[in-house]
Amino acid sequence: MGRWESNARGRLEKAAMELYEERGFDQTTVAEIAARAGLTERTFFRHYADKREVLFGGSGMLAELLVATVAGAPGSEAPLDVVAAALAAVGVLLDEARGRGFARRRQGIIAASAPLRERELIKLASWADLVAGALRQRGVEEPTATLAAAAGLAVFRVAFDRWVGDGNELDLPQLIRASLSDLKALAAAGHQRSAARTQRPVKADR
Amino acid sequence: MGRWESNARGRLEKAAMELYEERGFDQTTVAEIAARAGLTERTFFRHYADKREVLFGGSGMLAELLVATVAGAPGSEAPLDVVAAALAAVGVLLDEARGRGFARRRQGIIAASAPLRERELIKLASWADLVAGALRQRGVEEPTATLAAAAGLAVFRVAFDRWVGDGNELDLPQLIRASLSDLKALAAAGHQRSAARTQRPVKADR
Repeated sequence: MGRWESNARGRLEKAAMELYEERGFDQTTVAEIAARAGLTERTFFRHYADKREVLFGGSGMLAELLVATVAGAPGSEAPLDVVAAALAAVGVLLDEARGRGFARRRQGIIAASAPLRERELIKLASWADLVAGALRQRGVEEPTATLAAAAGLAVFRVAFDRWVGDGNELDLPQLIRASLSDLKALAAAGHQRSAARTQRPVKADR
Repeated sequence: MGRWESNARGRLEKAAMELYEERGFDQTTVAEIAARAGLTERTFFRHYADKREVLFGGSGMLAELLVATVAGAPGSEAPLDVVAAALAAVGVLLDEARGRGFARRRQGIIAASAPLRERELIKLASWADLVAGALRQRGVEEPTATLAAAAGLAVFRVAFDRWVGDGNELDLPQLIRASLSDLKALAAAGHQRSAARTQRPVKADR
C-alpha cells in the first residue's frame, strides 16, 4: 500500500461524515464519498461493505465484547449488575476509540435519517437478545434474563443520550453507572410504595 | 352499506391474516387479500391505508391511552408504577379487544418478516418517547422520565412475549404486574449487593 493510500480509511470516513452532515445520509452516494476523499469507489469498497458501515462498523465487535463480559463476570454478581458492567465495558471502548466527538456527529446523522434510526433500534434490540442469551448461559432463567437485558439496554440508551448531549462532563462508563443507580432508585421508590400499600389494613375506611 | 358488505372489514382481516401466515407478509398483495375476501381493492382501501395497517391499526389509539393514563395517575404515584399502570391499561384493551389468539397470530407473522420486526421496534420506541413526554408533563425530570419510560417498556415487552408464548394462563395485565415485580427484585438484588460492597473497609487486605 503506497503512502498516499495508507490513510485511505481515515480519509473515506472523514469525507463520508462531512457529506452525511451536509446533505443527509440518504442523499449521499458512495461515488460522492470516494470523490471527496480523492479515491476510487473500488477503494471505498475495500474498506467498507456499504455507506452505512461507516457509521455501524465495529458494532459486531462491541456485541462480542458484551457477550464475553457477561460470560466472564463473577458467578455471584447480580444479573442487572452483570449487564451494566458489560455495557460499561462497551462504554470504555466507545469513549477511548473514536470518542464523544465522533459519537455526537454520528448521533446527529442518525437522528436526521429514518432508516438509520431504525437501524440503530435494531442494533440495540439485537444486543439485548445477545445479552439475554449470555445470561441464560450463566444459569439465569427466563423471563429474568430477557428482563435484565432489556432493562440494562434501557440504562445504556439513557446514558448514551446524555453522553452525546450537551453540557455533560462525565464519561460514558460513569454515565452508565449513574443511570443504573437511577433505575435502582426508581425501582426502590415503587417497591417501598407497593410494600406500604400492601401493609395498609385491607378493610380500612377511606 | 349492503348486508354483504357490512362485515367487509372482518372478512378483509381474516383473508389478510390467512395469507400472511400462508405466504408471509412481504409476499402478499392487497389484490390477493381483496380477492380472497371476495371484495375489491377499492373496498380494502376504504378500511385500511395499506396491508400493514391490518396488523398495526389501533396502535395510535393505544398510544393515546398510554399518554392519558400517565397524565391521569395520582400525583403521589412513583414514576415506574405510573408507567406500569398505563401499560397495564393497554394490556386490558389488548386482552379484551382482539385477544390473545389474534396477538399470537400477529406475533408469528411479525417474527417472520424483517420489515415488520423493525416496524414493531419503532412502534415501541415511539411509545417510550410518548410516555417520557407524559412523565415530564407530570414534573418528572430528565433523565428519570426517559429511564422510567424505557424500563417500563422493557417490562411490557417481556410480559407481552410471555402472553403470546405457550403455556401461560395469566392475562396480559397480570403478566405486566409480574414483570414489574421481577424488575424491582432484579434492581433490589443489585442494590443490596452494591451497598454491601461500599461498606467493605477500603484498605482491607484481600
